[in-house]
Amino acid sequence: MVHAVIMAGGSGTRFWPQSRTARPKQVLSIAGPRPMIAETVMRLEGLVPIERTTIVTHESQVGHVLAGLGVSGPPPRIIAEPFGRDTAACIGLAAVHIRREDPDGVMLILAADHVIRPAARFLEVTRAAAEVATEEACLVTFGIKPTYPATGYGYVHRAALVRSVGDIAVYDVHGFREKPAREVADEYIASGEYYWNSGMFCWRADVILDCLRRFTPELYAALERIEAAIATPSEETVLREAYEPLEKISIDYAVMEHAETIRVVEADYDWSDVGSWASVAALRSDEADERGNVVVGKCVVHDADDTLVISDDDHLVGVLGMEGVVVVHTPDATLVCPRERAEEVKKLVEKLQARRMDKYL
Amino acid sequence: MVHAVIMAGGSGTRFWPQSRTARPKQVLSIAGPRPMIAETVMRLEGLVPIERTTIVTHESQVGHVLAGLGVSGPPPRIIAEPFGRDTAACIGLAAVHIRREDPDGVMLILAADHVIRPAARFLEVTRAAAEVATEEACLVTFGIKPTYPATGYGYVHRAALVRSVGDIAVYDVHGFREKPAREVADEYIASGEYYWNSGMFCWRADVILDCLRRFTPELYAALERIEAAIATPSEETVLREAYEPLEKISIDYAVMEHAETIRVVEADYDWSDVGSWASVAALRSDEADERGNVVVGKCVVHDADDTLVISDDDHLVGVLGMEGVVVVHTPDATLVCPRERAEEVKKLVEKLQARRMDKYL
Repeated sequence: MVHAVIMAGGSGTRFWPQSRTARPKQVLSIAGPRPMIAETVMRLEGLVPIERTTIVTHESQVGHVLAGLGVSGPPPRIIAEPFGRDTAACIGLAAVHIRREDPDGVMLILAADHVIRPAARFLEVTRAAAEVATEEACLVTFGIKPTYPATGYGYVHRAALVRSVGDIAVYDVHGFREKPAREVADEYIASGEYYWNSGMFCWRADVILDCLRRFTPELYAALERIEAAIATPSEETVLREAYEPLEKISIDYAVMEHAETIRVVEADYDWSDVGSWASVAALRSDEADERGNVVVGKCVVHDADDTLVISDDDHLVGVLGMEGVVVVHTPDATLVCPRERAEEVKKLVEKLQARRMDKYL
Repeated sequence: MVHAVIMAGGSGTRFWPQSRTARPKQVLSIAGPRPMIAETVMRLEGLVPIERTTIVTHESQVGHVLAGLGVSGPPPRIIAEPFGRDTAACIGLAAVHIRREDPDGVMLILAADHVIRPAARFLEVTRAAAEVATEEACLVTFGIKPTYPATGYGYVHRAALVRSVGDIAVYDVHGFREKPAREVADEYIASGEYYWNSGMFCWRADVILDCLRRFTPELYAALERIEAAIATPSEETVLREAYEPLEKISIDYAVMEHAETIRVVEADYDWSDVGSWASVAALRSDEADERGNVVVGKCVVHDADDTLVISDDDHLVGVLGMEGVVVVHTPDATLVCPRERAEEVKKLVEKLQARRMDKYL
C-alpha cells in the first residue's frame, strides 16, 4: 500500500516577514487561499487516505502544522522530531514506522511546501512511480520537466528509457547535478535529458532502510533503536537520545548518490518549490490586474506595475507609482524589496539576527 | 507689542498615512523629533511670549493641537474655527481678538507647519518686519531667498529697496506671482529680484482690519459681529452663525493683490513648507546614513539608497535593495512610493475616498 510522508520541517527565512522561526512557509497560505500543507494533503485525495498519511515536523511546529491543516476530518499521523537532522534521518524515521505497520509498504515522500498543478496529473504520475517502486524494488525520483533554465534547482540526468506506465516515461538515472551556472542550465535544457530534481521520491520502506543500513550505518543503528521503542513508555526518550547525535545529511548525499538502481519518472505537471516572494508573484499571476499587480488583502495600488502586495490583517497598504516591488505586511513587521531581489530576504533576516531583534525572527 | 498668530487649520492628505482628516501635518513630528506646531511656538522664544501667542485651528483639531504642543508651561490661546474659511477669515478672526486687547498690536502671521532654521536668524528677520509694520503701518510679507527654481511655490517680485533694518533689506513689492513653469522659475532665479512667497506676514491688527473693511466688506461685517460678541454668552453662537456663510478666500487674493503699501522683508534663513514626504527626506538629510537613507523608528535597511523609512510604533519595517523609495508605516496603514512621486500621495487618498475606505482617511 502507498503511504504518504510529508516532510514539514523547514524554517522559513525566505518568506519573512510572514514566515518566522516557529511559523515556516508550509503553514502559510502563501500561494493560494489555503496553507501549503493543507494543499499537500488534499492533493493526495483518491490515492492516499489520511490514515496512511504521515507528517514529519519539528516538535515545536506541531501546533502550527495542525492549525495549518484545518479541522475537517481526522488528522494525519504526525511524527515530531526532537531535533532537525535533515532529510535522511527524517525519511528513515518515517520508514521504520511504516515498515512496522506494513512490511511491504511503499513510501511517497513529499515536501509540505511545494505547489503542484493540476492534482489529477500529479496523481497519475505518482501512481506510476508507486507501481515502479513496488515492482522493481528500486528508488524512484520525480523528475520535473523544466520550463526554463533554472539556476536555483538541482537537476537529474536521465539515462535510457526503462519502461512506460500509461503515457508516463520511466528512465534510468545517469546522475544528479548540483544547481548549475546559467550556461550549464542552458545546455541541460537544450539536451532535453535533464529534469529538475524535485526532492520528491517513492520507494518501499524496506528498500530505503536497506540503503540506509548500507550507506549510513550509524543512522540505521539509531533507527533500529527508535523502532524497538515505538509504542513503549520509553519511545520519546529513546527518540530524543538516538536522534540528537545524528549527523545532518540529506537523502541525496546519504543515499541517492550511492544507490545502484534509481529510476526517474517524468513529471510533466506544473511544479514550484516556491523559493521566494518572486515565485509567489509568478504562481498567483492569474490573480493579477491588467498591469500585473497581485494584491492580497487590504491593499490599494495606484499607477503601479508588476507589484505583489500582501497585507494579512485589516491594515491598509497603499502603493503608488512602484514597479516590480514586493510589499508584505504582517502585524509586527513589513517587507519592501524588488521582486528580482526577493531571494535576498534572508540577508535582511540575518541582519535582524545580528542585531538580536529576536521578536521579529 | 508683537502678537503671534499661528494658522493651524490645514488638513493633510499629502502626508498620508501619518496625516489624516483629523490629524493634520502640523501636529505630526514629521521633520524632527517634535510636532511641527510645537517647533513653531518654541521658535518664537525671546520675541513673543506664550501669552501673546494665538493658534487658530478647526474646532475638531483643538485636542490634537494641544497634544502636539505638549505639556510644558501654559498653553497659548487657541481660537477654534467652527468652519474652515481660508486664511482671510482666519487672520481677520485673530485680528479682532488682538485689536480688542491691544489696539496698536502687531500681528506676526505664521503657519504651524513650516520648517525654519536657524531660529536666531528667524528672530532677527521677524524683529525687522515688526519694526517696519509698526512704523510704516504697512503690510509686510516675508520673502524667502530662493535656493533653487522651485515650481511648487508662488513668488514675490520685489521693487525698490526701501530701507534696511540692520543687515536685513526691506523692499517695495512689484507684485505676486503664481507657481511658475520651470523656465519662468529659472528666469526668476536669474534676475535675483524674486522671493518665494512664504505665506507669513506681519502687520498691525488695525491695518489689516482696515484692509478687510475696504476689500472684503462682507467678511469685515461678520468680524464686527464676532468682535462684539467676544466674552459674552453668545460668543460661540455668533461665531458659528457669522462664519458659516463666509466665502472661502485666501489673504493673498482678498488683500495682498489690492493693498497699496506692501513691503517684502528678505528672509535669508532656510525655509520649507514641507510639501511632501520628499521634502521630509531632504529636511532630514543630516540624519541619513552614508548611502542617503533616512530611517525613523524601528526600520532595518539593507543595500538600499536614498530611502526614507518611517515606522511610528514598535512595528519593524525591513527594506531591501530599494532606491529612492518612501515607506511610511502607521498602525493601520502603510505607504510605499518613489520619492519623486511623493506629491501624488493625494491621488492615493482620493482613491481611498472613492472606495469609501473612511477609516483610513
